[in-house]
Amino acid sequence: MSIFSLVSEDGLSRAGIVDLGHTKVETPVFMPVGTNASVKAILPCMLKAVGAKIILSNTYHLYLRPGIETIEALGGLHKFSGWNRAILTDSGGFQVFSLSDLRNISKKGVSFKSHVDGSMHFFTPEKVVELQSRWKSDIAMVLDECPPYTLDKKYVKDSLDITIEWAKRSIKAREDYPIKALFGIVQGGVFDDLRKEAAERMSELEFDGFAVGGLSVGEPTEDMYRAADIVSNILPKDKPRYAMGVGKPENIIELIDRGVDMFDCVMPTRNARNGTLFTKYGIVNIKRQEYKNDESPIEEGCRCYTCRNFSKGYLRHLMKAKELSFCTLASIHNLYYYVNLAKSARKAILEKRFGSFKKEFYENLKKGNRDG
Amino acid sequence: MSIFSLVSEDGLSRAGIVDLGHTKVETPVFMPVGTNASVKAILPCMLKAVGAKIILSNTYHLYLRPGIETIEALGGLHKFSGWNRAILTDSGGFQVFSLSDLRNISKKGVSFKSHVDGSMHFFTPEKVVELQSRWKSDIAMVLDECPPYTLDKKYVKDSLDITIEWAKRSIKAREDYPIKALFGIVQGGVFDDLRKEAAERMSELEFDGFAVGGLSVGEPTEDMYRAADIVSNILPKDKPRYAMGVGKPENIIELIDRGVDMFDCVMPTRNARNGTLFTKYGIVNIKRQEYKNDESPIEEGCRCYTCRNFSKGYLRHLMKAKELSFCTLASIHNLYYYVNLAKSARKAILEKRFGSFKKEFYENLKKGNRDG
Repeated sequence: MSIFSLVSEDGLSRAGIVDLGHTKVETPVFMPVGTNASVKAILPCMLKAVGAKIILSNTYHLYLRPGIETIEALGGLHKFSGWNRAILTDSGGFQVFSLSDLRNISKKGVSFKSHVDGSMHFFTPEKVVELQSRWKSDIAMVLDECPPYTLDKKYVKDSLDITIEWAKRSIKAREDYPIKALFGIVQGGVFDDLRKEAAERMSELEFDGFAVGGLSVGEPTEDMYRAADIVSNILPKDKPRYAMGVGKPENIIELIDRGVDMFDCVMPTRNARNGTLFTKYGIVNIKRQEYKNDESPIEEGCRCYTCRNFSKGYLRHLMKAKELSFCTLASIHNLYYYVNLAKSARKAILEKRFGSFKKEFYENLKKGNRDG
Repeated sequence: MSIFSLVSEDGLSRAGIVDLGHTKVETPVFMPVGTNASVKAILPCMLKAVGAKIILSNTYHLYLRPGIETIEALGGLHKFSGWNRAILTDSGGFQVFSLSDLRNISKKGVSFKSHVDGSMHFFTPEKVVELQSRWKSDIAMVLDECPPYTLDKKYVKDSLDITIEWAKRSIKAREDYPIKALFGIVQGGVFDDLRKEAAERMSELEFDGFAVGGLSVGEPTEDMYRAADIVSNILPKDKPRYAMGVGKPENIIELIDRGVDMFDCVMPTRNARNGTLFTKYGIVNIKRQEYKNDESPIEEGCRCYTCRNFSKGYLRHLMKAKELSFCTLASIHNLYYYVNLAKSARKAILEKRFGSFKKEFYENLKKGNRDG
């Protein structure tokens, strides 16, 4: 029984619903990143206020600290974190290959050194399914090998074969460790034939949804879009599609236009803490001197808590004074922007006007560049 | 016309109302500290949720950054900070003498070097009234010389004379710079006769309320309490009394018992960020290993957002992972504790049972020490 219902299509863009039992998620959707079971500088009540329905947490980080026993003892991820809407957990694959400076991959799994305390650990596809089952993730991801952006095709092909083998073992592991939804991950780097092969072989497996991995890892933007084109064409239409780690607002719009449903990225929260704020007219760098006495909100008409209550002048002051509340207020605005970008796209798809929505999106950005 | 109404007395303890026109403040009251026009890690909506009715901001910090022109351009402190309840601003006296490493005091005023950019500035009593008037503080404090804790009586006496002279000039400055409420500051260090003299000479001046300064600056606790005894006995009963920078929960209880109405302290927020949490049974050091898998809230029965939604185990995890939301959640709890300590004291005074309230307060602390 599919967790996904397709509600509307407009060109390749899709509006759907992911049914996770205790909660439903409307797509396209943006998922704020809560690495350590907390979205940085943000409380669950604020996440609800910005309209978030699902967040992402990181298996690698949570496994290392506080550890599975603690999360299990404290009732699973939802109860632990105080977030009662949906939670997707990644598999740790990406982090093992990007954060750990010592790792050793074999067919069996991957051993790695903790970036927290230097201790050695071993992840297998089965172990990663077990972890996500035990802490009651709503959507679990399979362990994959996530190669860095590379032009070494042989490496990407071998890596792809391992990822497919691990995907099969993950499905088998589910028999022992019940999981509400399990997603496979399509790798293949920037090689069209490998992306095609990855999508075809993954599609044959009994997953509830499919992610496209290895995007937003430094590849040229056109490679990202082409990979999405290829993969969308192959993946089954009745299952949700998730572009991991994507991305900039325009990347999200472009991938929605190519049939992708789900997105996550640290950009709204990380950039917020650096003073980079998203608006429909482009970026506001709040540190700039010109905002010192500026009474206007970050974005006129924005309905987020920050824009309804605070001026750019005040926010600039908070950032200059290194006040922690700056991180919170800036993150609220950026998350509101991202969550509502996906919601507006959904509305446009339902109303069969995604094309004009996308056109307007770019026109506003251009207008901002011209004025700014 | 007095801004203060005395509603009830129980022994020396008092319940009253400070009427500031657009808002009323019930006393005894605890005022969270928002140095840079922001209570650290806390948003105005959270301040309201913990029940705060008035906050303190620092003239010294705000004058240096963002500066009076910016705050004025952005509509005054309330509009600037998004906090529409009451704001008390200190005079900067304490900060000039504690934060600036270069200062030169004369009868005219005090010159000092900015701790932000090293620039030189000059505060006079008149200037400080002007600043607080222009950014629309509800309660302004006069410029005082705040000597460090010292046994040099001659120094304290000379300092006292300057503070009294400055107080007179502040009242005169009010003719040019309207101020809703202006408070004098009683200094005198740990010398009983000087405290008496300071209170008597200050009482003769037309202030709306009186602060006791130079407490919580490193003096023995009994000196703090004795100073409050002396001063309370002299200050007019129909005006509010404010113990600046006080203090620990037991200090607040003891000073309420000696007739003090208003308190401010960085302790609830600063200690929160260090993992030190206040409860009626004493301190919880959230870092401790014993809380790793602890499902219970910081304080059973506490109605703050943090205790209603999160376990000690989760909070410990957030602190270990250096998540910014830890500072917010811990500060919410500690501010709720402090604000409600003053509120509970008020209720007890209204019900003429402050004595038994105080007894119970200490019994609970002892019980915690015994169990802990």
